[in-house]
Amino acid sequence: MNSFGTLFRVSIFGESHGNSVGVTIDGCPAGIPLLESDFKTDLDRRRSGSKGTTPRKEADLPRFMSGVFNDHTTGAPLTIIFENTNTRFKDYEKLRETPRPGHADFVAYKKFGGFEDFRGGGHFSGRLTLGLVAAGVIAKKIISPVLVSAQLTEAGGMKDIEKAVEAAIAKQDSIGGIVECRASQIPAGIGEPFFNSVESLIAHIAFSIPAIKAIEFGAGFAAAGMKGSEHNDSFISVDGKTSSNHAGGVNGGIANGNDIVFRVAVKPTSSIPLPQNTMNIKSGKMAELRIEGRHDLCIALRVPVVLEAATAIVLADLLMIENRIKRVW
Amino acid sequence: MNSFGTLFRVSIFGESHGNSVGVTIDGCPAGIPLLESDFKTDLDRRRSGSKGTTPRKEADLPRFMSGVFNDHTTGAPLTIIFENTNTRFKDYEKLRETPRPGHADFVAYKKFGGFEDFRGGGHFSGRLTLGLVAAGVIAKKIISPVLVSAQLTEAGGMKDIEKAVEAAIAKQDSIGGIVECRASQIPAGIGEPFFNSVESLIAHIAFSIPAIKAIEFGAGFAAAGMKGSEHNDSFISVDGKTSSNHAGGVNGGIANGNDIVFRVAVKPTSSIPLPQNTMNIKSGKMAELRIEGRHDLCIALRVPVVLEAATAIVLADLLMIENRIKRVW
Amino acid sequence: MNSFGTLFRVSIFGESHGNSVGVTIDGCPAGIPLLESDFKTDLDRRRSGSKGTTPRKEADLPRFMSGVFNDHTTGAPLTIIFENTNTRFKDYEKLRETPRPGHADFVAYKKFGGFEDFRGGGHFSGRLTLGLVAAGVIAKKIISPVLVSAQLTEAGGMKDIEKAVEAAIAKQDSIGGIVECRASQIPAGIGEPFFNSVESLIAHIAFSIPAIKAIEFGAGFAAAGMKGSEHNDSFISVDGKTSSNHAGGVNGGIANGNDIVFRVAVKPTSSIPLPQNTMNIKSGKMAELRIEGRHDLCIALRVPVVLEAATAIVLADLLMIENRIKRVW
Amino acid sequence: MNSFGTLFRVSIFGESHGNSVGVTIDGCPAGIPLLESDFKTDLDRRRSGSKGTTPRKEADLPRFMSGVFNDHTTGAPLTIIFENTNTRFKDYEKLRETPRPGHADFVAYKKFGGFEDFRGGGHFSGRLTLGLVAAGVIAKKIISPVLVSAQLTEAGGMKDIEKAVEAAIAKQDSIGGIVECRASQIPAGIGEPFFNSVESLIAHIAFSIPAIKAIEFGAGFAAAGMKGSEHNDSFISVDGKTSSNHAGGVNGGIANGNDIVFRVAVKPTSSIPLPQNTMNIKSGKMAELRIEGRHDLCIALRVPVVLEAATAIVLADLLMIENRIKRVW
Repeated sequence: MNSFGTLFRVSIFGESHGNSVGVTIDGCPAGIPLLESDFKTDLDRRRSGSKGTTPRKEADLPRFMSGVFNDHTTGAPLTIIFENTNTRFKDYEKLRETPRPGHADFVAYKKFGGFEDFRGGGHFSGRLTLGLVAAGVIAKKIISPVLVSAQLTEAGGMKDIEKAVEAAIAKQDSIGGIVECRASQIPAGIGEPFFNSVESLIAHIAFSIPAIKAIEFGAGFAAAGMKGSEHNDSFISVDGKTSSNHAGGVNGGIANGNDIVFRVAVKPTSSIPLPQNTMNIKSGKMAELRIEGRHDLCIALRVPVVLEAATAIVLADLLMIENRIKRVW
Repeated sequence: MNSFGTLFRVSIFGESHGNSVGVTIDGCPAGIPLLESDFKTDLDRRRSGSKGTTPRKEADLPRFMSGVFNDHTTGAPLTIIFENTNTRFKDYEKLRETPRPGHADFVAYKKFGGFEDFRGGGHFSGRLTLGLVAAGVIAKKIISPVLVSAQLTEAGGMKDIEKAVEAAIAKQDSIGGIVECRASQIPAGIGEPFFNSVESLIAHIAFSIPAIKAIEFGAGFAAAGMKGSEHNDSFISVDGKTSSNHAGGVNGGIANGNDIVFRVAVKPTSSIPLPQNTMNIKSGKMAELRIEGRHDLCIALRVPVVLEAATAIVLADLLMIENRIKRVW
Repeated sequence: MNSFGTLFRVSIFGESHGNSVGVTIDGCPAGIPLLESDFKTDLDRRRSGSKGTTPRKEADLPRFMSGVFNDHTTGAPLTIIFENTNTRFKDYEKLRETPRPGHADFVAYKKFGGFEDFRGGGHFSGRLTLGLVAAGVIAKKIISPVLVSAQLTEAGGMKDIEKAVEAAIAKQDSIGGIVECRASQIPAGIGEPFFNSVESLIAHIAFSIPAIKAIEFGAGFAAAGMKGSEHNDSFISVDGKTSSNHAGGVNGGIANGNDIVFRVAVKPTSSIPLPQNTMNIKSGKMAELRIEGRHDLCIALRVPVVLEAATAIVLADLLMIENRIKRVW
Repeated sequence: MNSFGTLFRVSIFGESHGNSVGVTIDGCPAGIPLLESDFKTDLDRRRSGSKGTTPRKEADLPRFMSGVFNDHTTGAPLTIIFENTNTRFKDYEKLRETPRPGHADFVAYKKFGGFEDFRGGGHFSGRLTLGLVAAGVIAKKIISPVLVSAQLTEAGGMKDIEKAVEAAIAKQDSIGGIVECRASQIPAGIGEPFFNSVESLIAHIAFSIPAIKAIEFGAGFAAAGMKGSEHNDSFISVDGKTSSNHAGGVNGGIANGNDIVFRVAVKPTSSIPLPQNTMNIKSGKMAELRIEGRHDLCIALRVPVVLEAATAIVLADLLMIENRIKRVW
């Protein structure tokens, strides 16, 4: 199911080269001021354009199809459409028999029996994150003063990200990266023990972002090699602030009032300019594959704004469940 | 909400030192042979007893309260209760003002306003995983021939786990570990794009297991430093087998037919014999805390069977959604 | 799925002649005073005993298995078990080939492939409503000052219910009835347009009560024969009070602040002392069936308290969604 | 939440005089042939035009925004938009202070704090049923050979519906009606005991259709006055066919293989040409209200196709849950 959330419920739809991609937000509080221009900053951050990102040009203008009236949310389901304009067809048809390594082509074929829209990854395209980013813009408004911020801290194994991208372009190969996200001003007590722990919900939505393959909270994997006496965060204030934050702001699944901090690993883009070997799944023979078209070499560059949006969506939902957000703004 | 799953829905309840812990499985297929003795192997694996685990002794005998008749599941909700017998009260009362670092004491107090059952972590106790393990026993039966298997591969930063535990005991400190889980014989095509990706669902349930702070699929965090030409898995058969498995068996959120492989980081147990500093949240003064009672020094020893159960629960649900499991056995 | 609700989520389980019936409430606010004796009034109302109800005797003592500590709810899942003691086996085995008309025997067999617990209706028994009534006791507490009250207004087509029951006993036949339910002090604005309308949710849960076959809100079926000028309720106060209440307190799916009023039809009990014809589903031959055992002749007598509980559960959930109930009492 | 269903999940959005109304179907099987022209028959049935229906003219052309490729469903979320063209603004602004009796104006104001789109009922408009009808077209395809059919059997208390409508026009008043729906070829065994009974789910969605105020299955309200010996349906075949169908095709919440039969009551349209008294909720003074604009006098005329759609949506979901519908067509 392409929906996420209990009270602030986000559903995404669309295809890379179909009519549109879009999002519906069900349960959005009424009365939030909202203009189409409010989306510009985050959509620009998500968009391609810088070195290492795809040259495909899309205006990415959001169009409110429902749920906004007189420049405010109405409380009814809010649907935003992004029409696709710069679509291509021919690039993709020839790839059907030779599924691209690392892509969803093969699994989409197995799952949907050949009826999937295969153009540019179809429904599996990273273009679907437009809907997430749009929902995130609204989520960020309603969680205020809680702030969410994400940065690319490493690409291709290097801290100097610009150099890493230049090296990738030179080698005609793709690279991955690490994105760190931090949410601050979180009230202690949100989240649930066990199944709906803060970590469970954030990880759930983070792994719905294409290319993310790992997540760690606080000390994360390093915690496995620490001693309890090192790892335990000491309380230093009656409202729960701790001297260190190895827990990443979460104990027992519940936010403890310190910053929620986590990192995700973004794999290198699957589409690479270099020729690759793959199997023709009709003939069973190995074939050389050259991926043409317009692709990112370092998709991790575009992940921070998407991860912020995803995190803000989780927090909006948890804050609503915990009665911390009014139903009318 | 303490429930997980769409068609195979698991709900857990209980407290460490209350009457019981338990689990209800809603949507369990009818006709599965089921005896209380079927749970013994996995419950024994979960139970304390070996070096580094708590000396608390509980019989952990499952009792079917509903949903089983003539030694078979009936298709109605299946509730299993584990009565608590070896409970203590006094150990915990004095801890209320000095929340234990790393534990859920503080967040439980903030979330539930002081009404939480604070004895031994109450509802936040690792004892709640009894319900998960019990549900896992049933899930493993219905997903057959899919197999799930998890191992502790590292503790306290060492591959020699016995030595690591002995060192921890010697230092009266706790240690963490890494658990690797593998599911094999997975049919390609299960899972959903985006929100209900295989990674999303497994991560969601994995982070509901106490002490887990990180998860990575396939190459995981290492993928962030790889090039696309290294990371992409080449197809070597028409049914999707690949020469490497950096993707961990999942592309675009969908199982690709290779083994699903992932690792989790388990933090060191929060309860340690060494004295710790913490704040008295009533007085605002720092206090020395000595945790008595019965505790594990390496909770990671007990995680593999819980992680297997959690994974089997996800797979049971996905296989049912995909019509791969009959509603009557 | 045997669960109902979004934030105040009720799950029931159990069988008539198995170990127990029970209920889990997930999302129950913390801090509600709760004793096992609080359930006595409503459980007594539900229980058999008066003329026209089954002579089966069960103590129906609730036992808290989780979620209650120091006589208050903790905020963790609250499980209540009612152990079955007065169970029978032999009465039911011979009925398997000749399904009882009006009962779930045949459909249970078809759905669960013969693995269903067939004793006394098994999971389909009206005894499962114990869990609903127990959840209702808690729901009624948290929705206060909203009040829910239901009465049997008609039985066997007569307003004099005692006479109707005596006539049924004399004829050894069963009778149905009409139950009217009213919820007062409802804040305007709860409920959702369309799928989660107040009527949708109340009807959903009402039809989960065995033997209910119809529901109408306000003027109900009579509305179909009215003119708009008659049916429209005129506003007589700025807070939405209306001169009439043909709408039953709901417009556009949302509570309008007037009493929510609805009626349900309860069919005559399917088990009757009179001999009936049915088909032997093994042989395909018609057979005479005499239902022995202990049964109600007018199950409608026991419906009011169950319907109150069901309604209170819906309202508790809607009030929590609308931020009208605190998470800590 | 404006979503319904577990595996075949329908979400509706939109406003009467906003940009559009629409629907997303999540979980739709892949490979169903689907053209925009497939919707014409049912959309025409829903549309205004005959006597007693609104003169507003809308083309009601569905536009696939996602989920359809090469004239087949892809298995990805399927979004259909109906753009609004013939919208008005001025008619509605003056009504804000004098909420229309019987309409959702007042509750929308209370719920959404004045931010609701109030034009023509906004999100509460019957125009939202376009999305339901569109989803129903697809649901009807996938439930085949199950057939759903609904008819208006009575209007304004008369069987001669044409006369009833003429009388209403003459009196400048509105009338209600009774719609009967029947689903045939239902496999025994679909539906769940208790909360997800067939009656619960059908009633849930039926009450999401504007103007429906009552529902009864089989004998319905008449059952309350019947004896068990009359009401019980006798089995006459080994596959569960019964001589009568007082149960309306459902026992214990589960379909028994006979036709599912139910009736709903549709209230008279709230908008009437006659002047009405209402309260000005700003001034607290009574005022005369004359509703202008374009309205139906007998909305019941347009309900059958919507009720068919709603029923088909429930059955599609239940058949998918029960593994009776393939995920790839």
